[in-house]
Amino acid sequence: QSLTLAADETATLEQRIQALEKQLQANAGLVATTTNGRSLAFAGDDYSFQLGGRLQLDAAAYDPKQEGNDFGDGTRIRRLFLDIRGTVYESWNYRFQYDFARPSGSDSAARGIRDAWIQYTGFAPAITFGQFKEPFGLEHLTSSLNTTFIELGLTNVFTPDRRIGLGLSDNSRHWSYSLGVFGEPAEGDVPDEGHESWDITGRLTYAPLNSDGNVVHLGLAGRQHTPEDSGGSLRFRERPESNVTDVQLIDTDTLTNVKDVQYLGLEAATVFGPLSIQGEWVDTHLSRDSGAENLNLSAWYTYASLFLTGESRSYKNGIFDRITPKAIVGQGGIGAWQVALRYSKADLNDGPVIGGEEEDVTLGVNWYATPNIRFAANYIKVLELDRPGNRYHNEKLDSVVLRTQIDF
Amino acid sequence: QSLTLAADETATLEQRIQALEKQLQANAGLVATTTNGRSLAFAGDDYSFQLGGRLQLDAAAYDPKQEGNDFGDGTRIRRLFLDIRGTVYESWNYRFQYDFARPSGSDSAARGIRDAWIQYTGFAPAITFGQFKEPFGLEHLTSSLNTTFIELGLTNVFTPDRRIGLGLSDNSRHWSYSLGVFGEPAEGDVPDEGHESWDITGRLTYAPLNSDGNVVHLGLAGRQHTPEDSGGSLRFRERPESNVTDVQLIDTDTLTNVKDVQYLGLEAATVFGPLSIQGEWVDTHLSRDSGAENLNLSAWYTYASLFLTGESRSYKNGIFDRITPKAIVGQGGIGAWQVALRYSKADLNDGPVIGGEEEDVTLGVNWYATPNIRFAANYIKVLELDRPGNRYHNEKLDSVVLRTQIDF
Amino acid sequence: QSLTLAADETATLEQRIQALEKQLQANAGLVATTTNGRSLAFAGDDYSFQLGGRLQLDAAAYDPKQEGNDFGDGTRIRRLFLDIRGTVYESWNYRFQYDFARPSGSDSAARGIRDAWIQYTGFAPAITFGQFKEPFGLEHLTSSLNTTFIELGLTNVFTPDRRIGLGLSDNSRHWSYSLGVFGEPAEGDVPDEGHESWDITGRLTYAPLNSDGNVVHLGLAGRQHTPEDSGGSLRFRERPESNVTDVQLIDTDTLTNVKDVQYLGLEAATVFGPLSIQGEWVDTHLSRDSGAENLNLSAWYTYASLFLTGESRSYKNGIFDRITPKAIVGQGGIGAWQVALRYSKADLNDGPVIGGEEEDVTLGVNWYATPNIRFAANYIKVLELDRPGNRYHNEKLDSVVLRTQIDF
Repeated sequence: QSLTLAADETATLEQRIQALEKQLQANAGLVATTTNGRSLAFAGDDYSFQLGGRLQLDAAAYDPKQEGNDFGDGTRIRRLFLDIRGTVYESWNYRFQYDFARPSGSDSAARGIRDAWIQYTGFAPAITFGQFKEPFGLEHLTSSLNTTFIELGLTNVFTPDRRIGLGLSDNSRHWSYSLGVFGEPAEGDVPDEGHESWDITGRLTYAPLNSDGNVVHLGLAGRQHTPEDSGGSLRFRERPESNVTDVQLIDTDTLTNVKDVQYLGLEAATVFGPLSIQGEWVDTHLSRDSGAENLNLSAWYTYASLFLTGESRSYKNGIFDRITPKAIVGQGGIGAWQVALRYSKADLNDGPVIGGEEEDVTLGVNWYATPNIRFAANYIKVLELDRPGNRYHNEKLDSVVLRTQIDF
Repeated sequence: QSLTLAADETATLEQRIQALEKQLQANAGLVATTTNGRSLAFAGDDYSFQLGGRLQLDAAAYDPKQEGNDFGDGTRIRRLFLDIRGTVYESWNYRFQYDFARPSGSDSAARGIRDAWIQYTGFAPAITFGQFKEPFGLEHLTSSLNTTFIELGLTNVFTPDRRIGLGLSDNSRHWSYSLGVFGEPAEGDVPDEGHESWDITGRLTYAPLNSDGNVVHLGLAGRQHTPEDSGGSLRFRERPESNVTDVQLIDTDTLTNVKDVQYLGLEAATVFGPLSIQGEWVDTHLSRDSGAENLNLSAWYTYASLFLTGESRSYKNGIFDRITPKAIVGQGGIGAWQVALRYSKADLNDGPVIGGEEEDVTLGVNWYATPNIRFAANYIKVLELDRPGNRYHNEKLDSVVLRTQIDF
Repeated sequence: QSLTLAADETATLEQRIQALEKQLQANAGLVATTTNGRSLAFAGDDYSFQLGGRLQLDAAAYDPKQEGNDFGDGTRIRRLFLDIRGTVYESWNYRFQYDFARPSGSDSAARGIRDAWIQYTGFAPAITFGQFKEPFGLEHLTSSLNTTFIELGLTNVFTPDRRIGLGLSDNSRHWSYSLGVFGEPAEGDVPDEGHESWDITGRLTYAPLNSDGNVVHLGLAGRQHTPEDSGGSLRFRERPESNVTDVQLIDTDTLTNVKDVQYLGLEAATVFGPLSIQGEWVDTHLSRDSGAENLNLSAWYTYASLFLTGESRSYKNGIFDRITPKAIVGQGGIGAWQVALRYSKADLNDGPVIGGEEEDVTLGVNWYATPNIRFAANYIKVLELDRPGNRYHNEKLDSVVLRTQIDF
């Protein structure tokens, strides 16, 4: 009787398992996953898909020294991204990224397309087609989610846009390289009636040390840019490490008769447990024709950061990655707390061009409540602004900027 | 032998169950769900994600009495939303909402960002950061999916935009409150070079009765607005309860020298089974300087609605919610049918300002085919328009508006 | 003992199966699926949802014969779509499609809404409300993912926009029809203050042969258009079968006093195994008032295509569908290879209007690496351009265009 019972039961179990298997088979090759709820995704052996986004909310207050200046205290949605990425047929990746946050004030053009590319990874190096970041600059290449300060240092004045191009890249634990040729940005501010120029940009990084909490990073990058699409014109300008205002303290105005520009970038960064030190130096050389003088413009920054709660900055493939707090807010923890100090300088004065020479120091505090929620406060002091003849000459601006950020 | 067989079988079953468990484990903490197919979502214990959208298609015909007026019969995509919301680490909510439908005609600025916020619910009250609706006005706070008429009543002339702010809110079965401070909208039409103003807005609701089909709601709201960001300028204007045309029958034109504005709102609503009565009154007081006269402008509406098919309006957290028909079209039912009648009045005439005094009556029919598909027809009659000196003075416009709506 | 063991084991198995069933029950009516990783979707009995997108990247080089012409070599994101479609309550379909790629140069208006509609399929014919393609033109109605050449033939000069309307449609294996009335596009370039016109457009197709790799298709379409919304103005112009440049070789300039326009379209296509031949002819008759002359403008194309790897073009519901390569790149295959040759002609010269008469020949190669990744190269030769008085008269432009495309 026991025996019969067992046989009956297994028969029933058999049927129920068959039903379960059938249900799951409909999902063959597809397993829905989420990383801490940060996105909706599926991933099979040969396919993956991930839908995510990010929101960065800023508020800023300015205390300018000049009379009559109006830096415009206020709020701003700095970034509002939709982000889709995936893999098809194992060797083909793609990514679409759109920023719905309209630029403020004068940059009224809607330029929302960020990453938009297709990549083949069937052999090394990977080949990427489409719009992506030109491989130049450690802070620039780090996701805006993971930079230590709210805005980039003054080297950002030389940061190239994302452009449509073709790139080769590969990386391992100790080194990485990328090399690309690029045309125009997808939504060029320059009328595209003229021929596009082609940029050539490359970057090489070497990390003699790379283990958890123990990193030494060195980087070298170069860029050759011919501004043919803009009729030989270029303009370098930059906000005072805060993006709520529209005032650009340094500004070369339009530089004409530019034949080509060479950019050189040097990077170094270290992580020793909770401490990190990082710096970059960028030099640009503009060759000009029609009697216009050649120009040398440069910028650099260096900063130190420290996690009070013991985390370490995370390094991967030649850039810095997401911070995961040891104890999460909402699960009984206090999150991760980080303090940081940056010195930043740009020199846009050369020969007849007086774009301004600016020195800033920034004190930052980051509170990572969860791996995908961060609150940041930055105090920025303009130490010096040497721009004779301009209303902002000698402006020693104080700014406070707050950011609330989520990604999923 | 039977025994051996049973042992063999359980061995096999064991393996199959293990395989199933392994497959499902990849989904740990993640269960994909859908509410009547209305969206794609997952929800686990601590995480949820929901992707949805809405489409509202309008067509309108106008029969104006004035010669030479051209109200522009036609069609319009009124709203085309992408809507993403979720929860991470149990206590953190977020929502992104973007409207891809460009405004028609004169409002050529693309202002698509709707909700964009992060919320912490780890304690009461909930704290919200980002862009969301200022808590003012029962019809305004009700989702456009669930309002009884196609457009809001004339009180909408005083409806504040969604703005970037910080809010506190809490609610229970019988009461709710929200309080917030707000800066500018994310995509301000006002150049953001000047300092932003800060609004303070609060709302309190009390529902002495709140059970299914049996509701009494009372609400009180106040708003203090300083138009510093627009240099002390403000403008109140409103279309004739129909949004396909660009004609704004009442319009104060730009009011200058406005120091600050106080808004006061009173709300009352009841539900008795299929019948509902609702009304709102809004009063604004503008304090002006430089010798400009202070102004008092006001608007109110009241309406009654009746479900012929026996449904009741659904009330939750101080606002009205989605209607679920008793019998769904496509599943043998006829959906839910509702008729409604609204009287609406705005008075923008005060002292030297002749923005117009308008009285409308609207007859509406709603057909809820499914919980997420609605067809609506509104007939709007302008009973009186008192705006001496303007071409629309005494215009007694008749309008018919049709809407088709889906959300998912 | 064995018996006891078996009983214990089945008890344990019973519990584990119960747990699995409970987990899966949470997914009741919802099965997540993916078609070769091409999108994220769920589909139950009465509901489905699919989120997808497409990216088309173009690069082009031009070799014009005229002095001083600047066609603008370069790159472009041609299309960047987000695409959401679904079914609710079995009989209701919807689709939203948005193109994030801004048009280049002169067409600076952001017009991103593509499909945006709701459809009821509870009986035949299906009823569609919203914005969709007017049913006119075989190449036009074929998805841009599946057209044989990178851009459409010169008949595209007469292609109607997607417009907001109401349509009826049905189809079977051998025939299909659609009929619709249409107002304005969702984001009209014409100010919508005036009354909208209403288009009436219909199309009928018949396929006496329709089996795999064996198709004969015949089509007939008509359109009646009254340009009331644009005050009786119309303009026909077209790029030289390449969309990176902004130069429009043929251009009637604004035609005024247009009362109405009749469009007539004839289509024919055949598939015999790897070979396919297709052609279209479009004739337009403009009736004008206020003494302006009536006009007759026309265009046609014909092409032949051949799969070197043996695939056949796929035909369904009166249009052509996606190609699935026999052997996929990344899975040991070489994909599908197709060559094609098109002759295309448009005549915009009639009476006093000299918009130009253009003849092009295009040689195309398509490499379908996977069912959703395609690389294409087109060489386009302008054989003749007869446009006396215009700088482009007699221009015999050579163009090379490359496209990389993914959809998911």
